[in-house]
Amino acid sequence: MKIKNLVAATYAPMHKDGYLNTSVIKDYSSFLIRNKIAGVFMNGSTGDFVSLSIEERKEITLAWSKNKTSNLYLIDHVGSPSLKVSKELAAYASDKVDAIAVLAPYYFKLNTIEKLVKYCKEVAAAAPNLPFYYYHIPVLSGADLNMLEFLKVASKEIPTLEGIKFTNNNLIDYLHCKNFENGKFNILFGFDEILLASLPLGADGWVGSTYNHLAPLYYKIKELFEAGKMVEAAKLQTKAIRFVEILDGYGGFNGVAKGFMKYLGVDCGPSRFPHTTLPDEVYLEIKTELDNIGLLDHLSK
Amino acid sequence: MKIKNLVAATYAPMHKDGYLNTSVIKDYSSFLIRNKIAGVFMNGSTGDFVSLSIEERKEITLAWSKNKTSNLYLIDHVGSPSLKVSKELAAYASDKVDAIAVLAPYYFKLNTIEKLVKYCKEVAAAAPNLPFYYYHIPVLSGADLNMLEFLKVASKEIPTLEGIKFTNNNLIDYLHCKNFENGKFNILFGFDEILLASLPLGADGWVGSTYNHLAPLYYKIKELFEAGKMVEAAKLQTKAIRFVEILDGYGGFNGVAKGFMKYLGVDCGPSRFPHTTLPDEVYLEIKTELDNIGLLDHLSK
Amino acid sequence: MKIKNLVAATYAPMHKDGYLNTSVIKDYSSFLIRNKIAGVFMNGSTGDFVSLSIEERKEITLAWSKNKTSNLYLIDHVGSPSLKVSKELAAYASDKVDAIAVLAPYYFKLNTIEKLVKYCKEVAAAAPNLPFYYYHIPVLSGADLNMLEFLKVASKEIPTLEGIKFTNNNLIDYLHCKNFENGKFNILFGFDEILLASLPLGADGWVGSTYNHLAPLYYKIKELFEAGKMVEAAKLQTKAIRFVEILDGYGGFNGVAKGFMKYLGVDCGPSRFPHTTLPDEVYLEIKTELDNIGLLDHLSK
Amino acid sequence: MKIKNLVAATYAPMHKDGYLNTSVIKDYSSFLIRNKIAGVFMNGSTGDFVSLSIEERKEITLAWSKNKTSNLYLIDHVGSPSLKVSKELAAYASDKVDAIAVLAPYYFKLNTIEKLVKYCKEVAAAAPNLPFYYYHIPVLSGADLNMLEFLKVASKEIPTLEGIKFTNNNLIDYLHCKNFENGKFNILFGFDEILLASLPLGADGWVGSTYNHLAPLYYKIKELFEAGKMVEAAKLQTKAIRFVEILDGYGGFNGVAKGFMKYLGVDCGPSRFPHTTLPDEVYLEIKTELDNIGLLDHLSK
Repeated sequence: MKIKNLVAATYAPMHKDGYLNTSVIKDYSSFLIRNKIAGVFMNGSTGDFVSLSIEERKEITLAWSKNKTSNLYLIDHVGSPSLKVSKELAAYASDKVDAIAVLAPYYFKLNTIEKLVKYCKEVAAAAPNLPFYYYHIPVLSGADLNMLEFLKVASKEIPTLEGIKFTNNNLIDYLHCKNFENGKFNILFGFDEILLASLPLGADGWVGSTYNHLAPLYYKIKELFEAGKMVEAAKLQTKAIRFVEILDGYGGFNGVAKGFMKYLGVDCGPSRFPHTTLPDEVYLEIKTELDNIGLLDHLSK
Repeated sequence: MKIKNLVAATYAPMHKDGYLNTSVIKDYSSFLIRNKIAGVFMNGSTGDFVSLSIEERKEITLAWSKNKTSNLYLIDHVGSPSLKVSKELAAYASDKVDAIAVLAPYYFKLNTIEKLVKYCKEVAAAAPNLPFYYYHIPVLSGADLNMLEFLKVASKEIPTLEGIKFTNNNLIDYLHCKNFENGKFNILFGFDEILLASLPLGADGWVGSTYNHLAPLYYKIKELFEAGKMVEAAKLQTKAIRFVEILDGYGGFNGVAKGFMKYLGVDCGPSRFPHTTLPDEVYLEIKTELDNIGLLDHLSK
Repeated sequence: MKIKNLVAATYAPMHKDGYLNTSVIKDYSSFLIRNKIAGVFMNGSTGDFVSLSIEERKEITLAWSKNKTSNLYLIDHVGSPSLKVSKELAAYASDKVDAIAVLAPYYFKLNTIEKLVKYCKEVAAAAPNLPFYYYHIPVLSGADLNMLEFLKVASKEIPTLEGIKFTNNNLIDYLHCKNFENGKFNILFGFDEILLASLPLGADGWVGSTYNHLAPLYYKIKELFEAGKMVEAAKLQTKAIRFVEILDGYGGFNGVAKGFMKYLGVDCGPSRFPHTTLPDEVYLEIKTELDNIGLLDHLSK
Repeated sequence: MKIKNLVAATYAPMHKDGYLNTSVIKDYSSFLIRNKIAGVFMNGSTGDFVSLSIEERKEITLAWSKNKTSNLYLIDHVGSPSLKVSKELAAYASDKVDAIAVLAPYYFKLNTIEKLVKYCKEVAAAAPNLPFYYYHIPVLSGADLNMLEFLKVASKEIPTLEGIKFTNNNLIDYLHCKNFENGKFNILFGFDEILLASLPLGADGWVGSTYNHLAPLYYKIKELFEAGKMVEAAKLQTKAIRFVEILDGYGGFNGVAKGFMKYLGVDCGPSRFPHTTLPDEVYLEIKTELDNIGLLDHLSK
């Protein structure tokens, strides 16, 4: 099964003191389903994975798996600069989620497709029953490799290869990946702020953090696009961009947006260093700013 | 008047020996009009401007101006690392074309909006009667500045500011520029290979080199998009990408594509260092490759 | 006490199967002392830290601490993108080594001195009795911040601040750091290939991986420099550079150089992904190449 | 003859209104000789070459050539993104100066040694009687190529190849170039702020802008180095760095330092966009700052 529609890059819920609070995940799951989110991308960049210990990452995986439902496709990001750790996480995930994903090692940067495929292949083999996604995010991983070339090699080497989480603004490469072998692979678009631009290119699956907050708005964009109402669609896309910019202006999007979840009914608590979350009164200020641009009606509920 | 639709970034026609051959421009003009090209962007990156002397740039300007017609909007790129030279070229152009454009000085890179606006303002003032475009192409100019911020300042400082030739894949910034002051400015999209992605964002004007060769194909993409036929549109966009990749594979797109013009009926001659053009037999090979992907029918005629 | 002279960035010794083999560390320690190495920088880039689990990093720390001697100053790198993990490693190291070091989080890159000092301060406080070094290696950590500015703030905020492991070729910044508060801080130069260039700038402490293999050569360079014999000194420095280039040419310096340790009498075993070590016969080939440039006599013994 | 010692990257003298004022060059020449400067690097980055017209560059060349003396070796930078222009300037220089230099085309960046050698070869051939220098300054030209590899190819292809003006902080590559074919080529070090670090590597020729202002200080650094007085040498090198930083702090080093020449007795006038020069009262302020760090005694006179 190819996962389609919006996939939320989920937060790692925490208590006020910064310890994991996986009890929230049950409600988090219902919240996402209620907002028509089709899947979860856990333990990713949004999910504070670099700040979690191995045990904490496993705890997140376990918690989502306990709340597993056919309504929500679970993708677990198991990447790490340590291949050994990645394989351990992949093996752990193998009977708990629907798919795994990895990004490239991000300290010693990989500079060839061969090394990248080798890395992916070993991790994929540690969860041989699960579909495998490569998480392409060169701006953070430093692995600025061409994804069409990756698919050509990886499709032969990795039997469980399912697709790519494509977080890059090289739309030429994206289109090539979509076309590759008649669209055989699931190329999930990972740049929320330009979802609209991905639509005429045939995108039908998206992974991102703002799908936590703005699912109804994004489904509306899709609807308007399909009805040929581009002016209205572009207006809504602009609002989504403004959402990111406004929150980012309060000290960095990652932390501020995590803290904002509380005001949507899912208290994910604070973020970890280097991200910061804010006191309640500042979130009220943010809500006023969002209200001014007519965004409150478009928030997930 | 806001220029719309396809604007061709034109080549500097040369004799076999590498000297300018502006006698070609009359036919070049007819060719573009015949293919429904709405405007000409001369002396730009495609037009070998960095390899031309000041006199040669003026000769190009003059030749197009002699063939001026209401069917073809003429934009003359007058940018140079030397402000003095830019102003000289702007003054020369002032009674010959419909608009001027400049890119940022590209040796000592500009790192603030203030410096950029100051530069643009002085050049614009040297042709005070002509609409002024800023040519945003950070990958070549090194001026990686935010265009929304540029518009905020430049719109107050430069009375003739008409818009931006936006050659960058930051579609967030592009969308913001489109929206700025209710779409007051003409934001020409400059990334041919993803024209399709610009359509739902409201793009209605494009400048690029492949509009010389593939105008019918691009108009077809637009038509399909407007009819909601996205799958077909994406297929054609992919063909346009392949055109660039195939020619690029023969030694660099700029020079090879210039040489290809001859096979469309407009002999633009060779390119200058560091670009290379090829012998006839290689172009036959290229044509075969293009035929294999069904591109010959889509070429300008 | 300010550590001076050569500090070896040590390897994480492994069995042939890739599991840690800390039993080697006793001999490793004697080997380094025999070659007049003054200190050990463990769990760093050379030490495979990104490929080790937290437990393995602790095991390395423990093994060196068990072989502690006044002849070898022990610096433990405890950095991690997770502040929580860094603090845990710092606390663990606090009664086992002579000093700790951290590099900047390398996934979400730090872009301000403030954030960097905050991060360092918290880690330093987890081992409040130990001198603290910041490990400046922007090409890998992505934290390309000015170290003079760092010292200005950090010297006030971090009571245990001892110095910087400075792995960058900005010698201006290096000189400023050396001068700061009359040379109060210990600025260890971390670019082996240009040690000679650091000498007139007043460098008196160096950390690097090639001090494992070429300690006698580097002490000879220092001696020649002090005797004013620059031509000979430059010749030896060139040999050191060639050593790195030759090994690098066999598939990447990190892994190849780790495997080379066996031929110096300390079997550190293979490296982990993405680094590769080589079969015995290839090392014989490498030795022949080194012999050809007269390097065998200069190896550590 | 290999040029040695300090070579000043000279300014393009201008009148207050920004027009060239080559009448100053006679005195400028005496000033440099009086301060033991061995050569002139004209029409370079310091010399506003990107802001000069072709005619103005020729005027500069002519003026220096009229003041030619055996005491001052004249190198004329003739580089331009246009190969045609470079060749024209080289031909013009061929009977007027002692050597020519070019940097790589800086709009369409060269990415192979082959293209770079081809470019250099053609320019060198336009002044076949003059020694040829390649001007390596990747941070501005964007041609980040290895100079040892360049020498290997260029030494066979360009009969007049004399050396490199090496403005980069890759000291490994610098040392390799020095060693190449037993030091056959003249590798002029181009990073004033770390001249001291170049000394043990065998540097014996330097090109830079601050040799205009601080020649006595740099000769003192060299003297102290040769006497083994490294602490004093490093102190003076630090003062030289502070000179650059202080002037840079007033709006950009290039323009401010050009304006400062007036206070040394050679009125070079203002700089052109994007560089700025300052009113007299600000230069008094700058002099006070320089006095505070004991720099006034070290200025050229």
